[in-house]
Amino acid sequence: MVSKRVSPILSADKELVARYFQCKQSPYHAEHNPDGYINFGTAENYLLWDLIAEKTQEVGGLTEADSHYAELHGKRSFRQQIARLFSTRSGVNISEDDIVTAAGTTAILEILAYCLCDPDDAILVPTPYYSGFDYAFNMRAGAKLLPVPCDVSNQFSVSIESIKAALDEARQQGINVRAMLTSSPRNPIGDTLSKNDLQELVQFCEAEGLELIIDEIFADTRTSDEPFFSAMSTEANHVHTVYGFAKDFALSGLAVGVLHSKNKELLEAAQELAHFSRVSNHTQSLVEHVLSDEKWLEQFFQQAKSRLTDAYNAITNDLQEANIPYMEAKGGVFVFVNLSEYLDNDSFEAEKALSNKIFNDCKINLSPGALFHCPQPGWFRITYTLDREQVKTGITRLVKGLKSQA
Amino acid sequence: MVSKRVSPILSADKELVARYFQCKQSPYHAEHNPDGYINFGTAENYLLWDLIAEKTQEVGGLTEADSHYAELHGKRSFRQQIARLFSTRSGVNISEDDIVTAAGTTAILEILAYCLCDPDDAILVPTPYYSGFDYAFNMRAGAKLLPVPCDVSNQFSVSIESIKAALDEARQQGINVRAMLTSSPRNPIGDTLSKNDLQELVQFCEAEGLELIIDEIFADTRTSDEPFFSAMSTEANHVHTVYGFAKDFALSGLAVGVLHSKNKELLEAAQELAHFSRVSNHTQSLVEHVLSDEKWLEQFFQQAKSRLTDAYNAITNDLQEANIPYMEAKGGVFVFVNLSEYLDNDSFEAEKALSNKIFNDCKINLSPGALFHCPQPGWFRITYTLDREQVKTGITRLVKGLKSQA
Repeated sequence: MVSKRVSPILSADKELVARYFQCKQSPYHAEHNPDGYINFGTAENYLLWDLIAEKTQEVGGLTEADSHYAELHGKRSFRQQIARLFSTRSGVNISEDDIVTAAGTTAILEILAYCLCDPDDAILVPTPYYSGFDYAFNMRAGAKLLPVPCDVSNQFSVSIESIKAALDEARQQGINVRAMLTSSPRNPIGDTLSKNDLQELVQFCEAEGLELIIDEIFADTRTSDEPFFSAMSTEANHVHTVYGFAKDFALSGLAVGVLHSKNKELLEAAQELAHFSRVSNHTQSLVEHVLSDEKWLEQFFQQAKSRLTDAYNAITNDLQEANIPYMEAKGGVFVFVNLSEYLDNDSFEAEKALSNKIFNDCKINLSPGALFHCPQPGWFRITYTLDREQVKTGITRLVKGLKSQA
Repeated sequence: MVSKRVSPILSADKELVARYFQCKQSPYHAEHNPDGYINFGTAENYLLWDLIAEKTQEVGGLTEADSHYAELHGKRSFRQQIARLFSTRSGVNISEDDIVTAAGTTAILEILAYCLCDPDDAILVPTPYYSGFDYAFNMRAGAKLLPVPCDVSNQFSVSIESIKAALDEARQQGINVRAMLTSSPRNPIGDTLSKNDLQELVQFCEAEGLELIIDEIFADTRTSDEPFFSAMSTEANHVHTVYGFAKDFALSGLAVGVLHSKNKELLEAAQELAHFSRVSNHTQSLVEHVLSDEKWLEQFFQQAKSRLTDAYNAITNDLQEANIPYMEAKGGVFVFVNLSEYLDNDSFEAEKALSNKIFNDCKINLSPGALFHCPQPGWFRITYTLDREQVKTGITRLVKGLKSQA
């Protein structure tokens, strides 16, 4: 007999994962399976493998040192390479002592939830936000996420005023709000925090006694030439930055997540909890090698940006031709599109019905806005970092399906 | 500011880990550092690297498939190879659907604690037991471990009667006892569960409505020619078996843990919680390859057993010559020795003082019995699966230190 506390896990909606594997069972192939599924629903980058392959092939087999125990929150040499990447990105000197690694970004998010919140403490999150936040913060760690509604009419922007209003309301209800959480670039919108946005948030959180968690997993997945402002650059004790190698390096299968913080107590607790989510030394050495060649890294980021920009320009052209409205993105591997005119009515039930129709009839997996707590129905996230021919075919199929719906 | 619930993590005794790294900073080397630390305190096997190296070198670089997401509780092909290993070991047909992998055996133990216990539910554990159980079951998952005292005068044996007595006492105190936990081979004693022991435990737990957790991480690390009875062979719905590759395969640095169960609800919950402790696909493929060659595996286990037996015979000879009493072991990488005659008095304070003296004066790291909830002070666990010359030097140093104490 299982415990009572696993009930929410057993009853959780597993459709998202089920669809991923349904796509994987019969994937589209121009020649061999032209009617197969096209998965626009999983935020993976398929445009970088040749670059990553070239670098990872340089790594030899398992070493004796890696076969034995090392520091359970990440080998020092690995954390040093990560610190160097972060220093370059943030423009400030990052120490490996302020870094904890764990088996996946989800693991890092859960560790933060555990270390910053007691059960039923709450965290403010501007909408729309990454669907995995609910799972990581709430499922086992028991932190409550409080969505802060965005202004749909103004590019999903979130003002300090609306955050303050949500905070005051929560406090009036007796809820202990411990932190604010967002991502930059933001999943699913692709907007980024400007220097000013970031400073405002840092100051607001400090004034209100809140911790600030910024998920920067898409930090180097940007089409924009604007400079990127990492939360690490603030060097503030109440700011905690999350990173991983799944997106910028297209290494989702390696499950390596990273926490950066200046809070020594948090780091000590996170180090201990990382024992439950260890990254294999074998994989640490692989990623360490990828990070160790500065010249290669610079070229890699340039090529990755160039390929991402081409892919973004191509899909936004497709969308313009098809008269599908979308949000302009500065980063991420997706574009957020507005299909509300194809809904039967202005409801999330209608959004779900459209999502099912697109999946079943067009064999296209899209991510509906409800997943991201988008306040307005009809928005969908399309991941476009797939082979160009596949994206083109997918959009053609989608448009045909939508027209038959209209 | 961190959460209240991290207080026990911050205040936990971290001496064990500190000593491990102190040993690592100045390790013994016959020529280069003859006065360096000899670490008899960490249960790692240093006798198998050449065999493992040979096999792991056959594996090529990262594959494109492994760079992307796969099943988060372990790739099917990996679980199939594990299932084959388990089938051979247990003599029954094990399905990959009954297997969940996670990043380390500690992660698997915590997942079991979460899925079988609600906070403050309890688990009976015969003493002496693996010190990591307290951490894995209690630290975050909040399950209470209730030690069942063993009979020191009778080879630390634990009878069903004493388990029943502990259960009745706990129930009288209103404690909700959910499970019983032990390991076979048992850390730190090295005894194993006979077929009869196992059947008795399975029946007792069934009759009392308890789940039974057996940690078999040392399943193939045995000196005895007696057959091994895996808990998986019982095929009972209330029996859950834990495994990992740290000991039998000397791959502690890869952090791969495995759960086997026939309870479908438990498996479903464990699959979900494994998302927080993913094993890198890269490392899964490495271990999958090691498991895939049946002929190699058979020879590997034979050679591992032969080397372990030689090392065990050598250290027990050393101990006999030094008149140090020890428990005969059938498995594990350690021997449990009785140094009580060197204690200043019959107390755990005196055991700790002796442990400190041995560490500081002899530069020998031993694991004191208190770590394992041993009911009698003065017992120490010595891990002997190190280079023979190092073991010999360590025992000589230890004996010299003890004599100066006597």
